[in-house]
Amino acid sequence: MINVCLFGAGRIGAVHAANIARHSEVNICYVVDAYEPAAQKLATLYGATVVSAEHALADPKVDGVIIASSTNTHANLMELAARAKKAIFCEKPVDLSVKRVRECLAIVKEMGVVCSIGFNRRYDPQFSALKQAIVAGEIGNLEMLTITSRDPSPPPIEYIEVSGGLFRDMMIHDFDMARWLLDEEVVEVFATASCQVDAAIGSAGDVDTALVTLKTASGKLCQISNSRRASYGYDQRVEAFGSKGMAQVANQTESTLTLTNGLGRMSAKPEYFFLERYNNAYRLELDNFVACIRNEAVPVAGPMEGLQSLILAEAAVESLRTAKAISL
Amino acid sequence: MINVCLFGAGRIGAVHAANIARHSEVNICYVVDAYEPAAQKLATLYGATVVSAEHALADPKVDGVIIASSTNTHANLMELAARAKKAIFCEKPVDLSVKRVRECLAIVKEMGVVCSIGFNRRYDPQFSALKQAIVAGEIGNLEMLTITSRDPSPPPIEYIEVSGGLFRDMMIHDFDMARWLLDEEVVEVFATASCQVDAAIGSAGDVDTALVTLKTASGKLCQISNSRRASYGYDQRVEAFGSKGMAQVANQTESTLTLTNGLGRMSAKPEYFFLERYNNAYRLELDNFVACIRNEAVPVAGPMEGLQSLILAEAAVESLRTAKAISL
Amino acid sequence: MINVCLFGAGRIGAVHAANIARHSEVNICYVVDAYEPAAQKLATLYGATVVSAEHALADPKVDGVIIASSTNTHANLMELAARAKKAIFCEKPVDLSVKRVRECLAIVKEMGVVCSIGFNRRYDPQFSALKQAIVAGEIGNLEMLTITSRDPSPPPIEYIEVSGGLFRDMMIHDFDMARWLLDEEVVEVFATASCQVDAAIGSAGDVDTALVTLKTASGKLCQISNSRRASYGYDQRVEAFGSKGMAQVANQTESTLTLTNGLGRMSAKPEYFFLERYNNAYRLELDNFVACIRNEAVPVAGPMEGLQSLILAEAAVESLRTAKAISL
Amino acid sequence: MINVCLFGAGRIGAVHAANIARHSEVNICYVVDAYEPAAQKLATLYGATVVSAEHALADPKVDGVIIASSTNTHANLMELAARAKKAIFCEKPVDLSVKRVRECLAIVKEMGVVCSIGFNRRYDPQFSALKQAIVAGEIGNLEMLTITSRDPSPPPIEYIEVSGGLFRDMMIHDFDMARWLLDEEVVEVFATASCQVDAAIGSAGDVDTALVTLKTASGKLCQISNSRRASYGYDQRVEAFGSKGMAQVANQTESTLTLTNGLGRMSAKPEYFFLERYNNAYRLELDNFVACIRNEAVPVAGPMEGLQSLILAEAAVESLRTAKAISL
Repeated sequence: MINVCLFGAGRIGAVHAANIARHSEVNICYVVDAYEPAAQKLATLYGATVVSAEHALADPKVDGVIIASSTNTHANLMELAARAKKAIFCEKPVDLSVKRVRECLAIVKEMGVVCSIGFNRRYDPQFSALKQAIVAGEIGNLEMLTITSRDPSPPPIEYIEVSGGLFRDMMIHDFDMARWLLDEEVVEVFATASCQVDAAIGSAGDVDTALVTLKTASGKLCQISNSRRASYGYDQRVEAFGSKGMAQVANQTESTLTLTNGLGRMSAKPEYFFLERYNNAYRLELDNFVACIRNEAVPVAGPMEGLQSLILAEAAVESLRTAKAISL
Repeated sequence: MINVCLFGAGRIGAVHAANIARHSEVNICYVVDAYEPAAQKLATLYGATVVSAEHALADPKVDGVIIASSTNTHANLMELAARAKKAIFCEKPVDLSVKRVRECLAIVKEMGVVCSIGFNRRYDPQFSALKQAIVAGEIGNLEMLTITSRDPSPPPIEYIEVSGGLFRDMMIHDFDMARWLLDEEVVEVFATASCQVDAAIGSAGDVDTALVTLKTASGKLCQISNSRRASYGYDQRVEAFGSKGMAQVANQTESTLTLTNGLGRMSAKPEYFFLERYNNAYRLELDNFVACIRNEAVPVAGPMEGLQSLILAEAAVESLRTAKAISL
Repeated sequence: MINVCLFGAGRIGAVHAANIARHSEVNICYVVDAYEPAAQKLATLYGATVVSAEHALADPKVDGVIIASSTNTHANLMELAARAKKAIFCEKPVDLSVKRVRECLAIVKEMGVVCSIGFNRRYDPQFSALKQAIVAGEIGNLEMLTITSRDPSPPPIEYIEVSGGLFRDMMIHDFDMARWLLDEEVVEVFATASCQVDAAIGSAGDVDTALVTLKTASGKLCQISNSRRASYGYDQRVEAFGSKGMAQVANQTESTLTLTNGLGRMSAKPEYFFLERYNNAYRLELDNFVACIRNEAVPVAGPMEGLQSLILAEAAVESLRTAKAISL
Repeated sequence: MINVCLFGAGRIGAVHAANIARHSEVNICYVVDAYEPAAQKLATLYGATVVSAEHALADPKVDGVIIASSTNTHANLMELAARAKKAIFCEKPVDLSVKRVRECLAIVKEMGVVCSIGFNRRYDPQFSALKQAIVAGEIGNLEMLTITSRDPSPPPIEYIEVSGGLFRDMMIHDFDMARWLLDEEVVEVFATASCQVDAAIGSAGDVDTALVTLKTASGKLCQISNSRRASYGYDQRVEAFGSKGMAQVANQTESTLTLTNGLGRMSAKPEYFFLERYNNAYRLELDNFVACIRNEAVPVAGPMEGLQSLILAEAAVESLRTAKAISL
């Protein structure tokens, strides 16, 4: 039996808890959350105990930790867990500061523990199929990548204020997707952006609409578009253009029903948001973590993924500030 | 220079005139229509002369005739034209009576003239591509054929009354499509139908909604669905199911524009009716007729197509009356 | 806690067991199967005990039964379960004989127990959305229904021989779908069919390719097409044509990935077979059964659905034999 | 009768000649081309005379000119035609030098003649429908525009060498599309590019794969992707994302036929290249020119369109050279 401690009993913590609890050989033994009622609720559901972080990490029967608490606690918990020799699954981002991420990853590396970063999209069956098609040579050499990533609606301004900004908070997923599919490091980043969705986001010092272009050493190009608001739901598409063909992942829709009448043909809109769209990805991500704890797999997204994506996000911020392409 | 006489200066006559006049080496020399102003209008447009049928057919410089007049004149004009040794293009149906069609075709055959029947859908590029895919073996053995054929709105009751009924007037196109794609004669016909669109159609002794099933000697099956009214336009689809795959022709739509919003994804409806949908088919049909006159081609749909489709329509009428499958 | 006994530990029994075991307040207490190892395997998985049917039905703590054993045991088990006052979920068909079904249903009715028949497609989210669209008037009056239902590959000949034939075994699902969507009883049935997939199916006295047309008292028409083999997977589509529009349920595909190259645009094929396609339907079906046991819902498909669909299947068999439409 | 002189009897000249000759009230009286056989061939086809530019422009019966000769002759011919008071239709680009375009347009303006620049895509029915949807408010405020524009295969290196480079020769169409749809001038241009298709293009000092981002004063963003080679044909798509929805123009495909088998679902690839894809646009463009000559319309793309698009192309070249966003 594998024993796991859950840090963070919020929405995404509950998703991870449900997914890991599906494994008959995994037990959630502890739940840690500063907000006691949330911790207690999940603990009751899974027969776990609410304890402090220190208590949980000191218990030798704990094999791994799931860090789904607020971003500013991630790096600290990762260090503590690494020092306690626990396998780590941590939600992205590791931290909003590249310097802090480097420190943290040094300790994780030193302690040699399993470390999986929650870039859930790498586990999505649709994007996995795309990755496989590229690796299998079905499009020849990948030359241009187009990533469209739009949320249905912006988060509260209070969240925006502590999020680290659109590039570190939202586009970081797309930077990771780009790195994964390009399979080559990015050497140039350019960002342009504006505030078109809500002026309050601009007042908070952030942007809500952004375009970024990336270039690799061999000349592969990538364009990423983000918006904090799409009237039609969660827009998650990728197009990979290569010398022999083009592969595209379309949105998953709410149903296959269509209605045709005098106005035209109506089909369903995309699934609403990440919990619906990446339902399978979240499940497979935790399956991977369980397999990692058992030494049967390695993380699809490890600590370097957390660092490199943040470096791209920083470069985008700098590019937006200076109106220049940033070389890496 | 090829000289052609046009019988019938109505809507479809005008379409054929425009299509044949595109050929720089074809001249419309005569227009014949009981309604003088219509005849004069087309004659003026194409530099032709309005004459009587007798006059036109007696002129040795006339190479061919296009018969696009009312149905009840078709067989007579075909006989006269055949006897005058003119190449014939005649709109479907040849006649509403199988007996009359047989008589007419005997004369056409005896005179040995070119005779093309206006089953325009055989010339449509989409259905041609389907036919080619079947012939090329892309679906293996064809086993089931599904023909969906619905008009945007019913014709006037006065037209219904002289039309010969849905099976002879409308489904006859689908019977021809079935025969063409099945490439094997039909041995069993069953029809069921009702009047759901307009009670006045029922009062006129006709039906407006019908399903027919066909079977060939080797056991291939075909289903045809007709409605006199589709709220979304002209619905013209065919699905060919075979041992190795399925080939489908979808509707042509008014545009490729789509709009996605909180209601879903809206795309364009099918093109409105036959003049839009079969625009290319009408053009290619007349190209074929010109090539036939020059002995460079044979009609894609000849006189036997006119007869055999009518026989299937008669069988459908009889099946509907008796609630039995009719063997042929 | 609700206690359920599972009859039949084969493939579909395992699916139902997994779906019902998801409910934290449902316990599978017994498994009954003539083949002891299969019974034991499922019993171990769910902490149940392998017992005889008599033992299970005599236990007052058993609230309901899931009958997923071979077809020839269904009616008998239903009667025994009804007499033991257990809620019943039974796979279709209740029996291959209309007479036997009537006897069985009389007892079920007399005992007044919950009885749900496994017409899983009614629970499918796609077809539910279609049903809702029709009920909501989105297509106006339903006038024509087209049901396409093709299996990826035929079952073994040994199965065919005891299946009751294509109409009772396979098309029975489509008859139920037709009745559900038409929302009006069928008054006329016509069937045509052939053996095009495998001659051995013909030798076993069955057909493998069939078209059926149905008509209701008010004149609504329905066409059903079945094949025992579709090269591209499980083909499960429905098109509802009405006075104001057309609603269509397309196949669910294996992914949303497309590949465009010099050959064209390739997208994924339909999901392979019923376990994949109706994955959600099987889950929701058992959710409904649990809700029925708790008196919080009524079966979406009750005993009369089992009977009426079989009556349509019988009529289709008779129509095929006589080449006449059968009036009901 | 309107008399027109055609300059340039190459491929696009022939297209324009055919489209303008469709008008019964338009006469092509002269053809001018340095390559006499090409000029003679078109002249014969349309009953025109091969003459020198001077002769044609000196003839008072000539109402308008179609300039479809090589790029380096455009500006000069435009000036001569303007001074001769002829209505002008000129293929893009006016010239490869912004300075020269300004000079030329000053003369055109001074002479007050009709001047239409061949940005054919503005006349395309698909993009017209998109423009109308935006203007009608169907997507709310336009916030992001994505233009995908890829040719099936690169032109010969000799053409590349005199083309002015990808931004002036190819992306200029997309700059015009962006300006037209954004309906607001661009204030910032950033370009990144590489040579991935053919190293010889790089040796010729050009790029074959490029991404450009544009920004307007109000913060609207636009991304353009170009490739000189798409294995699947001519890729011409536009996506307009707005506050209330997203409108997309998809590629036109060669047919509506699909084939589904064990490999998946295959549909047709995009139409091959501009002559196929913009067939209707070329026709409507000349209809507009005829209407302009008659004072019944104004050019959809006038001389300023030629200038502004070239300014964006220049900025892209400069951005690529400096790796900085260029402010306008």
